[in-house]
Amino acid sequence: MDTVQTPLGKNKNAPGGSAVYAALSASCFTDTKIVSIAGTDFPDKYLKVLKAKNIDLSGIQLKKGKTFRWEGRYGWDFDSARTIATHLNLLKDFNPALTEEDKKCKFVFLANNDPEIQLKIIKQLRCPKLIAADTIEFWINNKRAKLVEVLKKIDILIINEGEARLLTQEPNLIAAAKKIVSYGSPRVIIKKGEHGLLYVAKNKFFSYPAYPLERVCDPTGAGDSFAGAFLGYLSVAGKLNEAKYRKALIMASAVASYTVEGFDIRVLSKLNRSLINKRYGEFKELTRA
Amino acid sequence: MDTVQTPLGKNKNAPGGSAVYAALSASCFTDTKIVSIAGTDFPDKYLKVLKAKNIDLSGIQLKKGKTFRWEGRYGWDFDSARTIATHLNLLKDFNPALTEEDKKCKFVFLANNDPEIQLKIIKQLRCPKLIAADTIEFWINNKRAKLVEVLKKIDILIINEGEARLLTQEPNLIAAAKKIVSYGSPRVIIKKGEHGLLYVAKNKFFSYPAYPLERVCDPTGAGDSFAGAFLGYLSVAGKLNEAKYRKALIMASAVASYTVEGFDIRVLSKLNRSLINKRYGEFKELTRA
Repeated sequence: MDTVQTPLGKNKNAPGGSAVYAALSASCFTDTKIVSIAGTDFPDKYLKVLKAKNIDLSGIQLKKGKTFRWEGRYGWDFDSARTIATHLNLLKDFNPALTEEDKKCKFVFLANNDPEIQLKIIKQLRCPKLIAADTIEFWINNKRAKLVEVLKKIDILIINEGEARLLTQEPNLIAAAKKIVSYGSPRVIIKKGEHGLLYVAKNKFFSYPAYPLERVCDPTGAGDSFAGAFLGYLSVAGKLNEAKYRKALIMASAVASYTVEGFDIRVLSKLNRSLINKRYGEFKELTRA
Repeated sequence: MDTVQTPLGKNKNAPGGSAVYAALSASCFTDTKIVSIAGTDFPDKYLKVLKAKNIDLSGIQLKKGKTFRWEGRYGWDFDSARTIATHLNLLKDFNPALTEEDKKCKFVFLANNDPEIQLKIIKQLRCPKLIAADTIEFWINNKRAKLVEVLKKIDILIINEGEARLLTQEPNLIAAAKKIVSYGSPRVIIKKGEHGLLYVAKNKFFSYPAYPLERVCDPTGAGDSFAGAFLGYLSVAGKLNEAKYRKALIMASAVASYTVEGFDIRVLSKLNRSLINKRYGEFKELTRA
Protein backbone atom coordinates (compact mmCIF):
# COMPACT_ATOMS: atom_id res chain seq x y z
CA MET A 1 0.00 0.00 0.00
CA ASP A 2 1.48 3.34 -1.08
CA THR A 3 0.95 6.93 -0.08
CA VAL A 4 2.46 9.18 -2.70
CA GLN A 5 2.79 12.91 -2.97
CA THR A 6 3.64 14.56 -6.28
CA PRO A 7 3.48 18.21 -7.34
CA LEU A 8 0.09 17.29 -8.85
CA GLY A 9 -1.49 15.95 -5.66
CA LYS A 10 -1.48 13.40 -2.86
CA ASN A 11 -2.68 9.81 -3.23
CA LYS A 12 -3.24 8.03 0.10
CA ASN A 13 -3.36 4.28 0.80
CA ALA A 14 -3.26 3.42 -2.85
CA PRO A 15 -2.73 -0.09 -4.22
CA GLY A 16 0.94 -0.62 -4.93
CA GLY A 17 3.90 -2.86 -4.47
CA SER A 18 6.31 -4.21 -7.04
CA ALA A 19 4.38 -7.45 -7.50
CA VAL A 20 1.11 -5.67 -8.24
CA TYR A 21 2.64 -3.40 -10.88
CA ALA A 22 4.75 -6.13 -12.47
CA ALA A 23 1.88 -8.61 -12.60
CA LEU A 24 -0.65 -6.16 -14.03
CA SER A 25 1.86 -5.31 -16.72
CA ALA A 26 2.90 -8.88 -17.52
CA SER A 27 -0.76 -9.94 -17.67
CA CYS A 28 -1.15 -7.86 -20.86
CA PHE A 29 1.10 -10.43 -22.52
CA THR A 30 0.81 -13.74 -20.72
CA ASP A 31 -0.52 -15.81 -17.81
CA THR A 32 0.82 -14.32 -14.63
CA LYS A 33 1.08 -15.39 -11.04
CA ILE A 34 2.09 -13.42 -7.96
CA VAL A 35 4.03 -15.01 -5.10
CA SER A 36 3.98 -12.61 -2.18
CA ILE A 37 2.51 -11.79 1.19
CA ALA A 38 -0.21 -9.33 2.17
CA GLY A 39 -2.22 -8.48 5.23
CA THR A 40 -5.93 -8.65 5.86
CA ASP A 41 -5.89 -4.85 5.53
CA PHE A 42 -5.26 -5.14 1.78
CA PRO A 43 -8.56 -3.99 0.27
CA ASP A 44 -10.52 -6.69 -1.50
CA LYS A 45 -11.35 -4.28 -4.32
CA TYR A 46 -7.70 -4.14 -5.29
CA LEU A 47 -7.46 -7.93 -5.36
CA LYS A 48 -10.49 -7.85 -7.65
CA VAL A 49 -8.61 -5.58 -10.06
CA LEU A 50 -5.87 -8.20 -10.27
CA LYS A 51 -8.38 -11.03 -10.67
CA ALA A 52 -10.08 -9.14 -13.49
CA LYS A 53 -6.79 -9.36 -15.38
CA ASN A 54 -6.71 -13.14 -14.80
CA ILE A 55 -3.72 -12.90 -12.50
CA ASP A 56 -3.31 -16.02 -10.35
CA LEU A 57 -3.42 -14.84 -6.74
CA SER A 58 -3.11 -18.26 -5.11
CA GLY A 59 0.54 -17.54 -4.31
CA ILE A 60 -0.31 -14.56 -2.13
CA GLN A 61 -0.15 -15.49 1.54
CA LEU A 62 -2.94 -13.46 3.12
CA LYS A 63 -2.05 -13.15 6.81
CA LYS A 64 -3.52 -11.37 9.80
CA GLY A 65 -1.68 -8.08 10.11
CA LYS A 66 -0.54 -5.19 8.00
CA THR A 67 0.58 -5.15 4.40
CA PHE A 68 3.89 -3.53 3.47
CA ARG A 69 3.50 0.23 3.31
CA TRP A 70 5.57 2.91 1.62
CA GLU A 71 5.21 6.66 1.64
CA GLY A 72 7.15 8.84 -0.76
CA ARG A 73 7.30 12.22 -2.38
CA TYR A 74 8.30 13.30 -5.88
CA GLY A 75 9.56 16.73 -6.88
CA TRP A 76 9.05 18.44 -10.21
CA ASP A 77 11.79 16.45 -11.87
CA PHE A 78 9.89 13.21 -11.08
CA ASP A 79 13.23 11.47 -11.28
CA SER A 80 13.51 9.77 -7.95
CA ALA A 81 11.23 9.55 -4.96
CA ARG A 82 12.19 10.73 -1.52
CA THR A 83 11.07 8.05 0.89
CA ILE A 84 9.16 9.45 3.85
CA ALA A 85 8.35 6.13 5.52
CA THR A 86 8.77 2.41 4.90
CA HIS A 87 6.92 -0.14 7.02
CA LEU A 88 7.93 -3.70 6.10
CA ASN A 89 5.13 -5.11 8.29
CA LEU A 90 4.31 -8.67 7.16
CA LEU A 91 6.97 -8.65 4.45
CA LYS A 92 9.55 -8.93 7.25
CA ASP A 93 8.65 -12.59 7.78
CA PHE A 94 7.92 -13.51 4.19
CA ASN A 95 9.06 -17.04 3.44
CA PRO A 96 8.41 -17.79 -0.21
CA ALA A 97 7.34 -21.42 -0.52
CA LEU A 98 6.72 -22.31 -4.14
CA THR A 99 4.24 -24.98 -5.21
CA GLU A 100 5.38 -27.81 -7.47
CA GLU A 101 3.84 -25.93 -10.38
CA ASP A 102 5.56 -22.65 -9.41
CA LYS A 103 8.92 -24.40 -9.37
CA LYS A 104 8.54 -25.18 -13.07
CA CYS A 105 7.96 -21.52 -13.95
CA LYS A 106 10.12 -20.43 -16.89
CA PHE A 107 10.01 -16.62 -16.61
CA VAL A 108 10.55 -15.19 -13.14
CA PHE A 109 10.78 -11.62 -11.93
CA LEU A 110 12.36 -11.26 -8.51
CA ALA A 111 10.97 -7.90 -7.52
CA ASN A 112 12.93 -5.66 -5.17
CA ASN A 113 13.31 -7.57 -1.92
CA ASP A 114 15.90 -8.92 0.52
CA PRO A 115 18.50 -10.74 -1.62
CA GLU A 116 18.27 -13.69 0.79
CA ILE A 117 14.59 -14.07 -0.11
CA GLN A 118 15.48 -13.74 -3.79
CA LEU A 119 18.05 -16.53 -3.39
CA LYS A 120 15.47 -18.73 -1.62
CA ILE A 121 13.22 -18.45 -4.68
CA ILE A 122 16.02 -19.07 -7.18
CA LYS A 123 16.99 -22.27 -5.34
CA GLN A 124 13.48 -23.67 -5.75
CA LEU A 125 13.28 -23.07 -9.51
CA ARG A 126 13.79 -26.23 -11.58
CA CYS A 127 14.11 -25.10 -15.19
CA PRO A 128 13.97 -21.31 -15.47
CA LYS A 129 14.52 -19.81 -18.91
CA LEU A 130 14.91 -16.23 -17.75
CA ILE A 131 15.29 -14.83 -14.25
CA ALA A 132 15.26 -11.05 -13.87
CA ALA A 133 15.83 -9.23 -10.60
CA ASP A 134 15.47 -5.75 -9.23
CA THR A 135 16.97 -4.25 -6.09
CA ILE A 136 17.16 -0.94 -4.25
CA GLU A 137 19.64 1.24 -2.38
CA PHE A 138 18.76 -0.38 0.95
CA TRP A 139 19.94 -3.86 -0.11
CA ILE A 140 22.98 -2.51 -1.95
CA ASN A 141 24.04 -0.76 1.25
CA ASN A 142 23.11 -3.49 3.69
CA LYS A 143 23.36 -6.85 1.93
CA ARG A 144 25.82 -6.27 -0.87
CA ALA A 145 27.50 -9.70 -0.66
CA LYS A 146 24.19 -11.55 -0.85
CA LEU A 147 23.09 -9.31 -3.70
CA VAL A 148 26.23 -10.15 -5.68
CA GLU A 149 25.39 -13.82 -5.05
CA VAL A 150 22.00 -13.15 -6.64
CA LEU A 151 23.70 -11.55 -9.64
CA LYS A 152 25.62 -14.75 -10.35
CA LYS A 153 22.38 -16.72 -10.56
CA ILE A 154 20.15 -14.47 -12.67
CA ASP A 155 19.99 -13.64 -16.36
CA ILE A 156 19.26 -9.95 -16.14
CA LEU A 157 19.39 -7.19 -13.56
CA ILE A 158 16.89 -4.33 -13.94
CA ILE A 159 17.83 -1.27 -11.88
CA ASN A 160 17.81 2.49 -12.09
CA GLU A 161 20.83 4.68 -12.75
CA GLY A 162 21.38 5.77 -9.16
CA GLU A 163 21.36 2.17 -7.98
CA ALA A 164 23.77 1.15 -10.75
CA ARG A 165 26.21 3.85 -9.68
CA LEU A 166 25.86 2.93 -6.01
CA LEU A 167 26.32 -0.80 -6.63
CA THR A 168 29.45 -0.36 -8.74
CA GLN A 169 30.88 2.90 -7.40
CA GLU A 170 31.26 3.92 -11.03
CA PRO A 171 29.97 7.40 -11.97
CA ASN A 172 29.94 6.50 -15.68
CA LEU A 173 26.88 4.40 -16.53
CA ILE A 174 28.55 2.42 -19.32
CA ALA A 175 31.37 1.47 -16.96
CA ALA A 176 28.80 0.69 -14.25
CA ALA A 177 26.82 -1.57 -16.57
CA LYS A 178 29.95 -3.44 -17.68
CA LYS A 179 30.97 -3.92 -14.06
CA ILE A 180 27.57 -5.42 -13.24
CA VAL A 181 28.03 -7.86 -16.12
CA SER A 182 31.46 -8.71 -14.67
CA TYR A 183 29.79 -9.46 -11.30
CA GLY A 184 27.87 -12.27 -12.96
CA SER A 185 24.58 -10.98 -14.40
CA PRO A 186 24.99 -11.57 -18.15
CA ARG A 187 22.67 -8.67 -18.92
CA VAL A 188 21.73 -5.42 -17.25
CA ILE A 189 19.05 -2.85 -17.94
CA ILE A 190 19.62 0.58 -16.45
CA LYS A 191 16.44 2.64 -16.27
CA LYS A 192 16.96 6.39 -16.56
CA GLY A 193 13.41 7.69 -16.13
CA GLU A 194 12.68 10.51 -18.56
CA HIS A 195 16.02 9.78 -20.26
CA GLY A 196 15.14 6.26 -21.35
CA LEU A 197 17.21 3.18 -20.85
CA LEU A 198 20.58 1.58 -21.38
CA TYR A 199 20.91 -2.16 -21.97
CA VAL A 200 24.28 -3.85 -21.79
CA ALA A 201 25.23 -7.47 -22.38
CA LYS A 202 28.76 -8.72 -23.03
CA ASN A 203 29.98 -6.46 -25.87
CA LYS A 204 26.42 -5.45 -26.72
CA PHE A 205 24.88 -2.05 -26.16
CA PHE A 206 21.38 -0.79 -26.73
CA SER A 207 20.15 2.62 -25.76
CA TYR A 208 16.66 3.98 -26.17
CA PRO A 209 14.93 7.23 -25.22
CA ALA A 210 11.80 7.53 -23.10
CA TYR A 211 8.39 8.37 -24.51
CA PRO A 212 8.03 12.18 -24.64
CA LEU A 213 5.39 12.71 -21.97
CA GLU A 214 4.37 16.26 -21.41
CA ARG A 215 2.71 15.50 -18.11
CA VAL A 216 3.86 12.85 -15.66
CA CYS A 217 1.33 12.21 -12.92
CA ASP A 218 2.94 9.58 -10.68
CA PRO A 219 6.14 7.67 -11.48
CA THR A 220 5.45 5.01 -8.84
CA GLY A 221 5.51 1.54 -10.38
CA ALA A 222 7.12 2.64 -13.65
CA GLY A 223 10.12 0.37 -13.07
CA ASP A 224 8.08 -2.63 -11.94
CA SER A 225 5.60 -2.37 -14.78
CA PHE A 226 8.61 -2.06 -17.10
CA ALA A 227 10.03 -5.31 -15.73
CA GLY A 228 6.65 -7.07 -15.94
CA ALA A 229 6.18 -6.13 -19.58
CA PHE A 230 9.76 -7.05 -20.43
CA LEU A 231 9.35 -10.58 -19.08
CA GLY A 232 5.75 -10.89 -20.22
CA TYR A 233 6.64 -10.08 -23.79
CA LEU A 234 9.68 -12.39 -23.84
CA SER A 235 7.69 -15.28 -22.36
CA VAL A 236 5.51 -15.41 -25.46
CA ALA A 237 8.10 -14.27 -28.04
CA GLY A 238 9.59 -17.66 -28.82
CA LYS A 239 13.33 -18.29 -28.99
CA LEU A 240 15.26 -15.60 -27.14
CA ASN A 241 17.82 -13.53 -29.03
CA GLU A 242 19.13 -9.96 -29.01
CA ALA A 243 16.45 -8.69 -31.41
CA LYS A 244 13.75 -10.05 -29.06
CA TYR A 245 15.41 -8.42 -26.08
CA ARG A 246 15.41 -5.09 -27.88
CA LYS A 247 11.76 -5.38 -28.85
CA ALA A 248 10.92 -6.36 -25.26
CA LEU A 249 12.73 -3.27 -23.98
CA ILE A 250 10.60 -1.01 -26.16
CA MET A 251 7.39 -2.83 -25.17
CA ALA A 252 8.45 -2.37 -21.54
CA SER A 253 9.13 1.34 -22.12
CA ALA A 254 5.69 1.67 -23.69
CA VAL A 255 3.99 0.13 -20.65
CA ALA A 256 6.03 2.25 -18.20
CA SER A 257 5.07 5.40 -20.09
CA TYR A 258 1.39 4.53 -19.65
CA THR A 259 1.85 3.69 -15.96
CA VAL A 260 3.12 7.16 -15.04
CA GLU A 261 0.24 8.94 -16.78
CA GLY A 262 -2.07 8.35 -13.81
CA PHE A 263 -1.85 7.73 -10.09
CA ASP A 264 -1.07 4.20 -8.86
CA ILE A 265 -2.49 1.39 -11.05
CA ARG A 266 -5.27 3.45 -12.65
CA VAL A 267 -3.89 3.42 -16.19
CA LEU A 268 -2.11 0.08 -15.89
CA SER A 269 -5.22 -1.81 -14.79
CA LYS A 270 -6.99 -0.76 -18.02
CA LEU A 271 -4.07 -1.43 -20.32
CA ASN A 272 -4.17 -3.99 -23.09
CA ARG A 273 -1.95 -5.31 -25.84
CA SER A 274 -3.49 -3.13 -28.51
CA LEU A 275 -2.73 0.10 -26.58
CA ILE A 276 0.79 -1.15 -25.94
CA ASN A 277 1.32 -1.92 -29.62
CA LYS A 278 0.08 1.55 -30.51
CA ARG A 279 2.67 3.19 -28.29
CA TYR A 280 5.31 0.75 -29.51
CA GLY A 281 4.66 2.11 -32.99
CA GLU A 282 4.96 5.68 -31.74
CA PHE A 283 8.28 4.77 -30.13
CA LYS A 284 9.62 3.42 -33.40
CA GLU A 285 8.54 6.63 -35.12
CA LEU A 286 10.17 8.74 -32.38
CA THR A 287 13.61 7.27 -33.08
CA ARG A 288 13.29 6.55 -36.80
CA ALA A 289 16.23 8.01 -38.68
CA MET B 1 40.93 30.48 -24.29
CA ASP B 2 39.76 27.93 -21.73
CA THR B 3 41.12 26.57 -18.50
CA VAL B 4 39.26 23.41 -17.61
CA GLN B 5 39.47 21.10 -14.66
CA THR B 6 37.92 17.63 -14.79
CA PRO B 7 38.34 14.64 -12.46
CA LEU B 8 40.91 13.42 -15.01
CA GLY B 9 43.15 16.50 -14.95
CA LYS B 10 43.58 20.22 -15.52
CA ASN B 11 44.01 21.79 -18.94
CA LYS B 12 45.28 25.38 -18.82
CA ASN B 13 45.01 28.10 -21.47
CA ALA B 14 43.67 25.70 -24.03
CA PRO B 15 42.19 26.72 -27.38
CA GLY B 16 38.46 27.07 -27.04
CA GLY B 17 35.45 29.18 -27.71
CA SER B 18 32.19 28.30 -29.38
CA ALA B 19 33.33 29.49 -32.80
CA VAL B 20 36.48 27.36 -32.75
CA TYR B 21 34.59 24.18 -31.83
CA ALA B 22 31.68 24.81 -34.19
CA ALA B 23 33.94 25.69 -37.12
CA LEU B 24 36.28 22.72 -36.67
CA SER B 25 33.24 20.47 -36.61
CA ALA B 26 31.45 22.07 -39.58
CA SER B 27 34.65 21.98 -41.60
CA CYS B 28 34.41 18.17 -41.71
CA PHE B 29 31.36 18.68 -43.94
CA THR B 30 31.64 21.99 -45.76
CA ASP B 31 33.46 25.31 -46.30
CA THR B 32 33.40 27.18 -43.05
CA LYS B 33 34.10 30.73 -41.97
CA ILE B 34 34.40 32.22 -38.50
CA VAL B 35 33.19 35.74 -37.70
CA SER B 36 34.52 36.68 -34.28
CA ILE B 37 37.06 38.66 -32.33
CA ALA B 38 40.29 37.59 -30.66
CA GLY B 39 43.25 39.21 -28.99
CA THR B 40 46.89 39.22 -29.95
CA ASP B 41 47.38 36.77 -27.08
CA PHE B 42 45.60 34.06 -29.06
CA PRO B 43 48.42 31.64 -29.95
CA ASP B 44 49.28 31.48 -33.59
CA LYS B 45 49.60 27.68 -33.38
CA TYR B 46 45.88 27.42 -32.69
CA LEU B 47 45.03 29.60 -35.67
CA LYS B 48 47.20 27.24 -37.70
CA VAL B 49 45.08 24.28 -36.57
CA LEU B 50 42.01 26.07 -37.93
CA LYS B 51 43.78 26.98 -41.17
CA ALA B 52 44.84 23.37 -41.63
CA LYS B 53 41.13 22.51 -41.79
CA ASN B 54 40.61 25.17 -44.49
CA ILE B 55 38.55 27.35 -42.21
CA ASP B 56 38.32 30.93 -43.45
CA LEU B 57 39.70 33.12 -40.68
CA SER B 58 39.36 36.46 -42.47
CA GLY B 59 36.28 37.26 -40.37
CA ILE B 60 38.24 37.14 -37.11
CA GLN B 61 39.06 40.64 -35.91
CA LEU B 62 42.50 40.30 -34.31
CA LYS B 63 42.85 43.20 -31.88
CA LYS B 64 45.40 44.32 -29.36
CA GLY B 65 44.30 42.97 -26.01
CA LYS B 66 43.05 39.81 -24.43
CA THR B 67 40.90 37.07 -25.95
CA PHE B 68 37.76 35.92 -24.12
CA ARG B 69 38.69 33.55 -21.31
CA TRP B 70 36.66 30.98 -19.44
CA GLU B 71 37.59 28.79 -16.52
CA GLY B 72 35.40 25.91 -15.44
CA ARG B 73 35.31 22.70 -13.52
CA TYR B 74 33.46 19.43 -14.17
CA GLY B 75 32.53 16.84 -11.55
CA TRP B 76 32.29 13.10 -12.07
CA ASP B 77 28.89 13.37 -13.69
CA PHE B 78 30.39 15.57 -16.45
CA ASP B 79 26.91 16.95 -16.93
CA SER B 80 27.38 20.64 -16.49
CA ALA B 81 30.39 22.80 -15.79
CA ARG B 82 30.73 25.01 -12.78
CA THR B 83 32.08 28.33 -14.01
CA ILE B 84 34.99 29.57 -11.94
CA ALA B 85 35.73 32.69 -13.97
CA THR B 86 34.55 34.41 -17.15
CA HIS B 87 36.53 37.29 -18.65
CA LEU B 88 34.75 38.79 -21.65
CA ASN B 89 37.82 40.89 -22.51
CA LEU B 90 37.68 41.93 -26.18
CA LEU B 91 34.36 40.17 -26.75
CA LYS B 92 32.73 42.99 -24.74
CA ASP B 93 33.14 45.37 -27.66
CA PHE B 94 32.59 42.91 -30.49
CA ASN B 95 30.76 44.55 -33.36
CA PRO B 96 30.12 41.98 -36.05
CA ALA B 97 30.47 43.63 -39.44
CA LEU B 98 29.77 41.15 -42.21
CA THR B 99 31.37 41.42 -45.64
CA GLU B 100 29.15 41.43 -48.73
CA GLU B 101 30.01 37.78 -49.21
CA ASP B 102 29.21 36.93 -45.56
CA LYS B 103 25.79 38.53 -45.92
CA LYS B 104 24.90 35.95 -48.55
CA CYS B 105 25.76 33.04 -46.27
CA LYS B 106 23.01 30.40 -46.26
CA PHE B 107 23.79 28.42 -43.12
CA VAL B 108 24.58 30.45 -40.02
CA PHE B 109 25.31 29.39 -36.47
CA LEU B 110 24.94 32.17 -33.94
CA ALA B 111 27.08 30.80 -31.14
CA ASN B 112 26.33 31.70 -27.55
CA ASN B 113 26.66 35.48 -27.27
CA ASP B 114 24.76 38.59 -26.30
CA PRO B 115 21.35 38.37 -28.08
CA GLU B 116 21.84 41.97 -29.25
CA ILE B 117 24.96 40.88 -31.14
CA GLN B 118 23.07 37.88 -32.51
CA LEU B 119 20.33 40.26 -33.75
CA LYS B 120 22.94 42.50 -35.38
CA ILE B 121 24.15 39.54 -37.42
CA ILE B 122 20.67 38.34 -38.37
CA LYS B 123 19.81 41.83 -39.68
CA GLN B 124 22.72 41.73 -42.07
CA LEU B 125 21.86 38.35 -43.60
CA ARG B 126 20.24 38.60 -47.06
CA CYS B 127 19.03 35.10 -47.89
CA PRO B 128 19.66 32.66 -45.06
CA LYS B 129 18.34 29.14 -45.47
CA LEU B 130 18.91 28.06 -41.90
CA ILE B 131 19.86 30.11 -38.84
CA ALA B 132 20.61 28.23 -35.65
CA ALA B 133 21.36 29.89 -32.32
CA ASP B 134 22.69 28.91 -28.94
CA THR B 135 22.45 30.78 -25.66
CA ILE B 136 23.38 30.38 -22.00
CA GLU B 137 21.99 31.01 -18.54
CA PHE B 138 23.58 34.47 -18.38
CA TRP B 139 21.59 35.83 -21.34
CA ILE B 140 18.39 34.07 -20.27
CA ASN B 141 18.64 35.77 -16.90
CA ASN B 142 19.84 39.17 -18.10
CA LYS B 143 18.52 39.75 -21.63
CA ARG B 144 15.45 37.56 -21.86
CA ALA B 145 13.38 39.96 -23.99
CA LYS B 146 16.15 40.36 -26.57
CA LEU B 147 16.65 36.61 -26.58
CA VAL B 148 12.96 36.02 -27.33
CA GLU B 149 13.35 38.51 -30.19
CA VAL B 150 16.15 36.31 -31.53
CA LEU B 151 13.90 33.25 -31.27
CA LYS B 152 11.39 34.85 -33.61
CA LYS B 153 14.05 35.28 -36.28
CA ILE B 154 15.86 31.96 -36.26
CA ASP B 155 14.99 28.49 -37.55
CA ILE B 156 16.34 26.42 -34.72
CA LEU B 157 17.45 26.89 -31.13
CA ILE B 158 20.14 24.55 -29.81
CA ILE B 159 20.38 24.58 -26.02
CA ASN B 160 20.94 22.23 -23.12
CA GLU B 161 18.25 20.92 -20.79
CA GLY B 162 19.01 23.24 -17.89
CA GLU B 163 18.80 26.27 -20.18
CA ALA B 164 15.53 25.03 -21.68
CA ARG B 165 14.00 24.72 -18.22
CA LEU B 166 15.32 28.13 -17.17
CA LEU B 167 14.09 29.85 -20.31
CA THR B 168 10.57 28.42 -20.09
CA GLN B 169 10.17 27.83 -16.36
CA GLU B 170 8.86 24.39 -17.32
CA PRO B 171 10.34 21.44 -15.42
CA ASN B 172 9.09 18.98 -18.06
CA LEU B 173 11.38 19.01 -21.11
CA ILE B 174 8.64 18.22 -23.63
CA ALA B 175 6.56 21.10 -22.31
CA ALA B 176 9.67 23.30 -22.31
CA ALA B 177 10.45 22.44 -25.92
CA LYS B 178 6.88 23.14 -27.03
CA LYS B 179 6.96 26.47 -25.23
CA ILE B 180 10.16 27.45 -27.05
CA VAL B 181 8.44 26.63 -30.35
CA SER B 182 5.54 28.83 -29.23
CA TYR B 183 8.02 31.70 -28.60
CA GLY B 184 8.84 31.66 -32.29
CA SER B 185 11.71 29.26 -33.01
CA PRO B 186 10.09 26.68 -35.29
CA ARG B 187 12.49 24.00 -34.08
CA VAL B 188 14.41 23.31 -30.91
CA ILE B 189 17.13 20.83 -30.04
CA ILE B 190 17.60 20.14 -26.35
CA LYS B 191 20.97 18.58 -25.58
CA LYS B 192 21.00 16.25 -22.58
CA GLY B 193 24.67 15.27 -22.39
CA GLU B 194 25.07 11.58 -21.60
CA HIS B 195 21.30 11.19 -22.07
CA GLY B 196 21.24 12.21 -25.70
CA LEU B 197 18.93 14.73 -27.28
CA LEU B 198 15.37 15.77 -27.80
CA TYR B 199 14.26 17.52 -30.99
CA VAL B 200 10.89 19.17 -31.23
CA ALA B 201 9.23 20.94 -34.14
CA LYS B 202 5.54 21.72 -34.40
CA ASN B 203 3.87 18.33 -33.67
CA LYS B 204 7.10 16.50 -34.40
CA PHE B 205 9.29 14.74 -31.86
CA PHE B 206 12.59 13.01 -32.23
CA SER B 207 14.59 11.60 -29.37
CA TYR B 208 17.95 9.92 -29.56
CA PRO B 209 20.40 8.52 -27.00
CA ALA B 210 24.03 9.55 -26.62
CA TYR B 211 26.92 7.39 -27.73
CA PRO B 212 27.83 5.03 -24.86
CA LEU B 213 31.22 6.42 -23.86
CA GLU B 214 32.92 4.65 -21.02
CA ARG B 215 35.37 7.47 -20.45
CA VAL B 216 34.59 11.14 -20.94
CA CYS B 217 37.71 13.30 -20.81
CA ASP B 218 36.45 16.88 -21.27
CA PRO B 219 32.90 17.86 -22.22
CA THR B 220 33.93 21.40 -23.20
CA GLY B 221 32.85 22.16 -26.75
CA ALA B 222 30.51 19.18 -27.07
CA GLY B 223 27.52 21.42 -27.68
CA ASP B 224 29.29 23.75 -30.11
CA SER B 225 30.80 20.93 -32.13
CA PHE B 226 27.31 19.38 -32.16
CA ALA B 227 25.88 22.58 -33.62
CA GLY B 228 28.70 22.89 -36.17
CA ALA B 229 28.18 19.36 -37.44
CA PHE B 230 24.41 19.79 -37.53
CA LEU B 231 24.64 22.84 -39.78
CA GLY B 232 27.62 21.52 -41.69
CA TYR B 233 25.82 18.34 -42.63
CA LEU B 234 22.60 20.13 -43.58
CA SER B 235 24.44 22.66 -45.73
CA VAL B 236 25.51 19.90 -48.12
CA ALA B 237 22.49 17.59 -47.73
CA GLY B 238 20.30 19.17 -50.40
CA LYS B 239 16.65 19.99 -49.84
CA LEU B 240 15.82 20.23 -46.14
CA ASN B 241 13.19 17.91 -44.69
CA GLU B 242 12.52 16.11 -41.42
CA ALA B 243 14.51 13.02 -42.47
CA LYS B 244 17.54 15.23 -43.17
CA TYR B 245 17.17 16.96 -39.82
CA ARG B 246 17.16 13.60 -38.08
CA LYS B 247 20.22 12.40 -39.92
CA ALA B 248 21.96 15.70 -39.12
CA LEU B 249 21.16 15.23 -35.43
CA ILE B 250 22.85 11.83 -35.39
CA MET B 251 25.87 13.17 -37.33
CA ALA B 252 26.04 15.97 -34.77
CA SER B 253 25.85 13.48 -31.88
CA ALA B 254 28.65 11.48 -33.47
CA VAL B 255 30.92 14.53 -33.66
CA ALA B 256 30.09 15.59 -30.08
CA SER B 257 30.92 12.10 -28.83
CA TYR B 258 34.36 12.37 -30.41
CA THR B 259 34.92 15.88 -29.03
CA VAL B 260 34.57 14.81 -25.40
CA GLU B 261 37.04 11.93 -25.74
CA GLY B 262 40.01 14.28 -25.40
CA PHE B 263 40.86 17.65 -23.90
CA ASP B 264 39.93 20.80 -25.86
CA ILE B 265 40.12 20.44 -29.67
CA ARG B 266 42.58 17.53 -29.70
CA VAL B 267 40.21 14.92 -31.11
CA LEU B 268 38.09 17.38 -33.09
CA SER B 269 41.05 18.85 -34.99
CA LYS B 270 41.89 15.40 -36.34
CA LEU B 271 38.34 14.40 -37.19
CA ASN B 272 37.19 13.63 -40.71
CA ARG B 273 34.04 12.57 -42.51
CA SER B 274 35.03 8.92 -42.60
CA LEU B 275 35.43 8.71 -38.80
CA ILE B 276 32.10 10.53 -38.39
CA ASN B 277 30.37 8.11 -40.75
CA LYS B 278 31.82 5.18 -38.79
CA ARG B 279 30.32 6.42 -35.57
CA TYR B 280 27.07 7.29 -37.33
CA GLY B 281 26.85 3.62 -38.24
CA GLU B 282 27.52 2.60 -34.64
CA PHE B 283 24.74 4.95 -33.53
CA LYS B 284 22.28 3.31 -35.90
CA GLU B 285 23.29 -0.10 -34.54
CA LEU B 286 22.93 1.15 -30.95
CA THR B 287 19.25 1.98 -31.44
CA ARG B 288 18.31 -0.65 -34.04
CA ALA B 289 15.20 -2.52 -32.94
